[in-house]
Amino acid sequence: MTITTVGVDADDTLWHCESLFRLTHQRFVDLLSEHGDQDRIESQLAVTEKRNLRLYGYGAKGFTLSMIETALDLTDGAVDTRVIREILAVGREMLTEPIEPLPGVEHALAQLSQRYRLILITKGDLLHQEQKLASSGLGDLFAAVEIVSEKDADTYRRVFARHGTGPDQAVMAGNSMRSDILPALEAGSWGALVPYPLVWAHEAAEAPVGHQRYVELGSISELPGWLEKVSNG
Amino acid sequence: MTITTVGVDADDTLWHCESLFRLTHQRFVDLLSEHGDQDRIESQLAVTEKRNLRLYGYGAKGFTLSMIETALDLTDGAVDTRVIREILAVGREMLTEPIEPLPGVEHALAQLSQRYRLILITKGDLLHQEQKLASSGLGDLFAAVEIVSEKDADTYRRVFARHGTGPDQAVMAGNSMRSDILPALEAGSWGALVPYPLVWAHEAAEAPVGHQRYVELGSISELPGWLEKVSNG
Repeated sequence: MTITTVGVDADDTLWHCESLFRLTHQRFVDLLSEHGDQDRIESQLAVTEKRNLRLYGYGAKGFTLSMIETALDLTDGAVDTRVIREILAVGREMLTEPIEPLPGVEHALAQLSQRYRLILITKGDLLHQEQKLASSGLGDLFAAVEIVSEKDADTYRRVFARHGTGPDQAVMAGNSMRSDILPALEAGSWGALVPYPLVWAHEAAEAPVGHQRYVELGSISELPGWLEKVSNG
Repeated sequence: MTITTVGVDADDTLWHCESLFRLTHQRFVDLLSEHGDQDRIESQLAVTEKRNLRLYGYGAKGFTLSMIETALDLTDGAVDTRVIREILAVGREMLTEPIEPLPGVEHALAQLSQRYRLILITKGDLLHQEQKLASSGLGDLFAAVEIVSEKDADTYRRVFARHGTGPDQAVMAGNSMRSDILPALEAGSWGALVPYPLVWAHEAAEAPVGHQRYVELGSISELPGWLEKVSNG
């Protein structure tokens, strides 16, 4: 098999993100603790987030707006405005958090960039994702960066046609079964799951066990070696 | 001169946007009218918007967050939470407003798309800009869509190299001197200003009078004819 192009997800594949969201969730719960228990607050936030996803898309700004809306809903408007202020501050912190690549990422990308067209493919706020990439110091390793509003099969077909030699000769690597793996397989590409300990409920999906173009790796460090095996197979 | 590629701005070039922002400003002023006069509210909002621009970028979500922050600042936290709720609703309306192309836009783009590579180049929220384009019904006329976090000379060099035959053979048309015209000229492209009655203060800049590759048109309907003249000149 010839593989020319490697797409790589960003959040929770190259650097922590969900852990920051979880931390933010916890701070949100603490801020509202006098208005309800953890479960009620968490589930209300999840409902609001999901309802707003179509409108706000993915990313910290929409999440901040959803936190404010949830605070108003949970308290019937009786929330202290200091809590709103605190939520705005938490949102700003999410946007300015320094980005550290996860262990092994830099080395794996450096190896991959020598043999393949390496493309960053990520959802989220356009500006924020660019800023995170710049902050990570990994930008120069990528031949192209695609920040997209949704990751479906058409997205992968389009991106791998534009920057590579088509989906058939491309692999997508990432931590989300639902966004990185299943639609890439549907597009005819390969999919390499790089698990992250936490998965956002919205991104969970069943593994396509037995699919010939699917693999679950232990970490991104195994990606170059697996690609070599596939290429020779 | 050979021109192969035409870049077109979206907000306030293809459809109204600033007028919606102005309307939103006015509603914001009305909501806070008991806490200050129009000028004070407007200028505080402008200060907050500008301070947050580097963090939030362009678009309705960041603007909504800035309105909430301004409401808290102006009232020292004494704002009624119903006002916050109202601001969230106003922000959602901005995101769901149906999009009507400005007069002459559809006809001009249809003409242009037959002779040139037509590329939409716009700032703002990724998802929202895609939704506006879909709502406008103009999507099929474009060979490519580039939603960018900043419009500088490098942006135009990159986009016109990727989708066209380089900046030298491209023209950028739009209503913003600062974002559409000056950086396109700097990149070596042509710049065609299509004025819109309202200009966001942040986008204002002086006209490059006398620049050989600059023209100010009366409306986008004049773009095809002007391009023909340039091509034959």
